[in-house]
Amino acid sequence: METDKKKFEATNEEIDKAVQKAYKAFLLYRNLSGNLKVNFLEAIAAGIEKARTSLLKTAMQETFLAEARLNGEINRTINQIKLFSELLQKSNWVNAIIDTALPERTPLPKPDIRQMQKAFGAVAVFGASNFPFAFSTAGGDTIAALAAGCTVVYKAHPAHPALSEMVADIIVEAAQKTNMPDGIFSMIQASTVEPATYLIQHPLIKAVAFTGSFKAGKAIYDAAAKREEPIPVYAEMGSTNPVFILPEISEQKSSDIAKALAASNLLSAGQFCTNPGIIISDKSGADNFQKVFSESIIAAAGDSMLSDSIFNSYQHNIKKVSDFNEVSITGKGIQSEKQNAATPYMFNIPAKTFIEKKELHEEIFGPASLHITAGNKDELMKIAESLAGQLTITIWGTENDILNHADLINYLELKAGRIIINGVPTGVEVTHAMMHGGPYPATTDNKFTSVGTTSIYRFTRPVCYQNFADKFLPDELKNDNAINILRMVNGGYTKNKI
Amino acid sequence: METDKKKFEATNEEIDKAVQKAYKAFLLYRNLSGNLKVNFLEAIAAGIEKARTSLLKTAMQETFLAEARLNGEINRTINQIKLFSELLQKSNWVNAIIDTALPERTPLPKPDIRQMQKAFGAVAVFGASNFPFAFSTAGGDTIAALAAGCTVVYKAHPAHPALSEMVADIIVEAAQKTNMPDGIFSMIQASTVEPATYLIQHPLIKAVAFTGSFKAGKAIYDAAAKREEPIPVYAEMGSTNPVFILPEISEQKSSDIAKALAASNLLSAGQFCTNPGIIISDKSGADNFQKVFSESIIAAAGDSMLSDSIFNSYQHNIKKVSDFNEVSITGKGIQSEKQNAATPYMFNIPAKTFIEKKELHEEIFGPASLHITAGNKDELMKIAESLAGQLTITIWGTENDILNHADLINYLELKAGRIIINGVPTGVEVTHAMMHGGPYPATTDNKFTSVGTTSIYRFTRPVCYQNFADKFLPDELKNDNAINILRMVNGGYTKNKI
Repeated sequence: METDKKKFEATNEEIDKAVQKAYKAFLLYRNLSGNLKVNFLEAIAAGIEKARTSLLKTAMQETFLAEARLNGEINRTINQIKLFSELLQKSNWVNAIIDTALPERTPLPKPDIRQMQKAFGAVAVFGASNFPFAFSTAGGDTIAALAAGCTVVYKAHPAHPALSEMVADIIVEAAQKTNMPDGIFSMIQASTVEPATYLIQHPLIKAVAFTGSFKAGKAIYDAAAKREEPIPVYAEMGSTNPVFILPEISEQKSSDIAKALAASNLLSAGQFCTNPGIIISDKSGADNFQKVFSESIIAAAGDSMLSDSIFNSYQHNIKKVSDFNEVSITGKGIQSEKQNAATPYMFNIPAKTFIEKKELHEEIFGPASLHITAGNKDELMKIAESLAGQLTITIWGTENDILNHADLINYLELKAGRIIINGVPTGVEVTHAMMHGGPYPATTDNKFTSVGTTSIYRFTRPVCYQNFADKFLPDELKNDNAINILRMVNGGYTKNKI
Repeated sequence: METDKKKFEATNEEIDKAVQKAYKAFLLYRNLSGNLKVNFLEAIAAGIEKARTSLLKTAMQETFLAEARLNGEINRTINQIKLFSELLQKSNWVNAIIDTALPERTPLPKPDIRQMQKAFGAVAVFGASNFPFAFSTAGGDTIAALAAGCTVVYKAHPAHPALSEMVADIIVEAAQKTNMPDGIFSMIQASTVEPATYLIQHPLIKAVAFTGSFKAGKAIYDAAAKREEPIPVYAEMGSTNPVFILPEISEQKSSDIAKALAASNLLSAGQFCTNPGIIISDKSGADNFQKVFSESIIAAAGDSMLSDSIFNSYQHNIKKVSDFNEVSITGKGIQSEKQNAATPYMFNIPAKTFIEKKELHEEIFGPASLHITAGNKDELMKIAESLAGQLTITIWGTENDILNHADLINYLELKAGRIIINGVPTGVEVTHAMMHGGPYPATTDNKFTSVGTTSIYRFTRPVCYQNFADKFLPDELKNDNAINILRMVNGGYTKNKI
């Protein structure tokens, strides 16, 4: 008997059909010019803009996120698409490297060798629950893959199936309007492990991008590693985003820092990968910091979380931490009658306990934070050493603090993809220099970001052309450099022709 | 009771000590300037040059490779070191990306964000049997890792233990002379699975580089994927390097091509990862091609292989292919009395059989080649489709051939890291544009090369600095750009200061 849930589950046959189509589309799409790809991407952006009102309405119904927040996320999603369009128009991104021939070299002549980044294949993208636009159907992963010349089979997140269908329709319509090959983008709905595993292990899928929980991300990594042909998995699995507050600034500005971090912690019911979940304060201003932080928490009402399972998981984690003998609750927000409302929590943990108990290092997805007071420099370093890999680590410090803790800050680089001074980790800029990825378990591959233009390189590989006649080379590698891109030629960078 | 073999096996305790030292050295070495690293690298090169005569003598005894070949390989090894020294001196390689702040932006100010490539950690390098210098102790993997700022625990290949000790001593001496941190490089000897696995799975090891057989490379990949913290594995596992000879050139130049490819196939007893093992010729000149190729094979005497196990494996593979009903031996070289001498072999296989039997697609490491005659364009494409991932694919063709087979050549890009026109795949140039890596099973990560300057990126990761005061940034990211490197600033490339 077919249940309601079952109705939305893609069958293996449907997934196979989507992947086969994506593979065939890839053979055509990978050869299209940057300008044709730009037409397609811009049609997606225009489609989203046109449907903004109805998309917003559906997103609010499915995610409980506020209208202003979702509207901002639509802007971000459109801006992401525009940023990749600009990247494709400039064409520098292909990293053209040229070494010209030395026919007279002895003992053997040196051949002409040229390299550039080319599209990777048909790829699978898994949508996230917490960003129904920016990390979902037409989100960063999908757009980076399409910009690279890959085709996409997209697995929608079950937390917002209707919205996913709407955006998928916009992408497919944009593809048709701009004469893209059939199958360039397909969406499947699935909420169980089996269809996801079938997709990950399909021989024609060549990479996977994912944003979500550690458990799901690790399962995807393991499924991909077990394939006959292992493939790369770019799983962004969240992080506790530790914040270190150094002595001088702790003494001088603990109230301001507490207010800024509490606001960052409470944003969108704490449902950000970069939510500051662990805060380590030097003892100098720690008491006041915790007092002011707790005032913000106590005054905050619970907001509805994205889904039942995320809410249940939050409740479970709050109980787990509360049950620790050494842990005290130093702030608890206002319980709300809203559906799946997450009451904000603030915990205090002795440094020694935190260093020893790895369970306390696990992410609590939601508006909760763990506060630790460090007695001295040594203890700050010990806490740093106890940390697992992170997306971000934030340091608050005066100039003196930074100078006095140079070793600590230098060491913290090993634990995170992004180091922030005197700021909050939330608010991930979509820009060229962004690194949204970090040492495991923050991501499964900390060489790559899932936000910003360099995220395109998750979906490319270098291809090298040896001894090709000029006319048979891709435009990016031809002698005349008619498209005027920056290239490394014989070790130096130039836009000159050869 | 301890056997002779056991004596050379590193214990887990010894490996742990080497890794602990490498980790501690990494914390210091990663922060050293490019110039200090250059001093170290150049001292290694000088040490190798100084010991050239004794190194050559030991290498000849252990590998059976010819003096001229080994001497050339020492040159290459020294040139590799010099190329990485030059790379470090220029500093462009760190890929500095800078997005400056927009404090007035609404609704939120944009922070200053800067990114560069930084060293990955302490890494494990596995030496290769077939390049006792260039892919061994002070070979490309070790030097790329050291250039990146990583420290190295090197597992010597059991085929040349004495040579490995000599070169390891040179590296350690160079480190001491140039005041590098103790433990920057350690060597362990191991010929069994257990110590290798212990090294790969050591929590402080953050990446593995390897060149060798598919079996060993895949075992390393699996061991790394099973770690609590999975790590990247850059295993180059060889390839059959298919060669396609298109109709017009096949008719015009089959004799010349046959001679060139036979010479490539026989080089150093066929013991190259890029040895042309599969040759597909259009029927037009196929008979003459095979006749001339077989003349070279029949006239060639067997040379000693690198080790007993490589020789045994060659014998096994020759028997496996010979035993196929549809396979015929079309050329057999002169049997030699030398130790472990590999008799050259040439086989003919019907296209249909080759397409169907995946066993015939496996690499035969040694002087053997499989010849297939393609009846038409369609069959060429079917053979291309049947191929697994390769390091290289070579195409011989006139201008007309290339034009007429554009689809085939375009498709072949998906199967290899490097495409060669009218050349031989052996002779891997150590240069900027080289891609020595390809789709699985050629390598476990086809985003990276193990030869050439871009191989450094196997040992780096992007680190992002947000809102740092200028004076606390690395030199590569400071406003004044005193070191005069090319940087991407707000989306455009420039050497200008900010």
